[in-house]
Amino acid sequence: MIATALTDMFGLDHPIVLGPMGGVAGGRLAAAVSNAGGLGMVGGGYGDPDWLDTELALVKAQAKRPWGVGLITWAIGDGILELALRAKPHAVMLSFGDPSPYASAIKAAGCKLICQVQDVAGAVQARKAGADVIVAQGTEGGGHGGARGTMPLVPAVIDASGSVPVVAAGGIADGRGLAAALMLGAHGALLGTRFYASREALGHDQAKQRIVNAEGEQTQRTRIFDIVRGYDWPNGYTGRALHNAFMSRWTGREDELAEQAATVSPEFWAAAGDGDYDTAMVWAGEVVDLIHKVESAGDLVAGIGAQAEEQLQRAGQLLRKP
Amino acid sequence: MIATALTDMFGLDHPIVLGPMGGVAGGRLAAAVSNAGGLGMVGGGYGDPDWLDTELALVKAQAKRPWGVGLITWAIGDGILELALRAKPHAVMLSFGDPSPYASAIKAAGCKLICQVQDVAGAVQARKAGADVIVAQGTEGGGHGGARGTMPLVPAVIDASGSVPVVAAGGIADGRGLAAALMLGAHGALLGTRFYASREALGHDQAKQRIVNAEGEQTQRTRIFDIVRGYDWPNGYTGRALHNAFMSRWTGREDELAEQAATVSPEFWAAAGDGDYDTAMVWAGEVVDLIHKVESAGDLVAGIGAQAEEQLQRAGQLLRKP
Repeated sequence: MIATALTDMFGLDHPIVLGPMGGVAGGRLAAAVSNAGGLGMVGGGYGDPDWLDTELALVKAQAKRPWGVGLITWAIGDGILELALRAKPHAVMLSFGDPSPYASAIKAAGCKLICQVQDVAGAVQARKAGADVIVAQGTEGGGHGGARGTMPLVPAVIDASGSVPVVAAGGIADGRGLAAALMLGAHGALLGTRFYASREALGHDQAKQRIVNAEGEQTQRTRIFDIVRGYDWPNGYTGRALHNAFMSRWTGREDELAEQAATVSPEFWAAAGDGDYDTAMVWAGEVVDLIHKVESAGDLVAGIGAQAEEQLQRAGQLLRKP
Repeated sequence: MIATALTDMFGLDHPIVLGPMGGVAGGRLAAAVSNAGGLGMVGGGYGDPDWLDTELALVKAQAKRPWGVGLITWAIGDGILELALRAKPHAVMLSFGDPSPYASAIKAAGCKLICQVQDVAGAVQARKAGADVIVAQGTEGGGHGGARGTMPLVPAVIDASGSVPVVAAGGIADGRGLAAALMLGAHGALLGTRFYASREALGHDQAKQRIVNAEGEQTQRTRIFDIVRGYDWPNGYTGRALHNAFMSRWTGREDELAEQAATVSPEFWAAAGDGDYDTAMVWAGEVVDLIHKVESAGDLVAGIGAQAEEQLQRAGQLLRKP
């Protein structure tokens, strides 16, 4: 077992956090990660109350250990945080925006506040807001994120976070990455894309298979899927997705896409419903290189934890007396 | 001491390689890194024979331990490799292009061939060319590079490199990063920007001071400085530099800059000669966050090595019996 401030805080067997991927990290996946000794997170996404209600009921029914829920801070609508807190999660993770307006309600509910940040200024803001854990998310990660790389961002965030434990995210899919995160000084790692390609993840089998088949050079950060879906993301955030025909068609023509949204959007949503991933996006990080099959989330947590332990044991063997 | 296939190959005290930064990593810096137990590298850049001759004479005179020289593969001109090999380096590092036309001459000279790559395809090519070491360079790094992040790129390159030892580059400036690289499975780390801000580095004190003062969000990948200098870099490579006024002026207007090069270039070169870094570039990676003062290269090698050893010792302490 690997013991860190993160595993102590939540009583985990492994310092592994599930990335709260909207529409992908539902209650079943979150429960599977938690029951295997990681910290499962439901992905609240843009805050559809019906979806969230269903998935929170599922995780409550299935999880025997602590779990959490993640929300997109700038998209938190009326009553959504309250809905999440009524399910009594052990942690709420806020990403992409100033967490301070929500911090006191989360803490008053006896919940740990996890803040995901994409730069050092975000870490300073999260610390001021009273974050119990700060996730430093690198640009390699799938889905929405910023521009900084994980390797240099994590130690910089640690240096800015005082005694608040930091978790590394972006570009981690196996025990090597988890062990590396711990050596950077992080207390754990958050993994998204690796768990997308798990049996318990929501989303089409086709999408999971594309992740398995893709190479790291085939992912790209883009605003296109936000534009076509009408989500008004703040400046500085883009989404990393597998390259597809829709991206080829619209990259560099973002303004034109916005103008034509009234015709293009319905087609897009229809394709998404049909699982047509030449049009719809598959959010995925550069770690697709390291993902070779769809596995059960429980096996993933155990396997990643075990591989990280092996790497840490090997660390001592690298040392020689001069 | 940390012992890896890299330290064994060159008889190093620390698995630390100096990034062969053109115009910055001269003979004095290379010798200082080698004499401190790392692998010093002279940065051959675009292959100015007079500059290279001078700096190779310097490293030969000062280095008591193995050292190497780095060349930009696509820019290797007539006689440059031969000039480098006549100085009897222990290693030649080739970056940015197909190394295979040069591999046999390097190996025939009894020299180790180090190939720096930016993606998995590059690693496969390097392995086929007979690389003795493969450097996996992430986009976080300063100066020229590709688009992949260090954290996911390094394990993917390792998986594609068979028994060839891999060194991690991009986003590493201290012992935490070195220890993390080793946990990813690399045999060492290559550091550029950290050594730019060293006393022995060539280049203006002003440039070094800008690195010390900068934050990681203030670096950016760009083609502007290649365009204004008339260097015809192949597609896929950009240079990461500190953001400055010249970048603000020309970003998004690259074609216009190319058209106006006849007037803008002389002004640019004059500014560069004067150490005016509002115009001239300071190549630097995202690790500027972790660089707080200009130090001697020998102290840096010893300090980074010692911090990495501490981190690796700490690794065992993270393990608990379940």
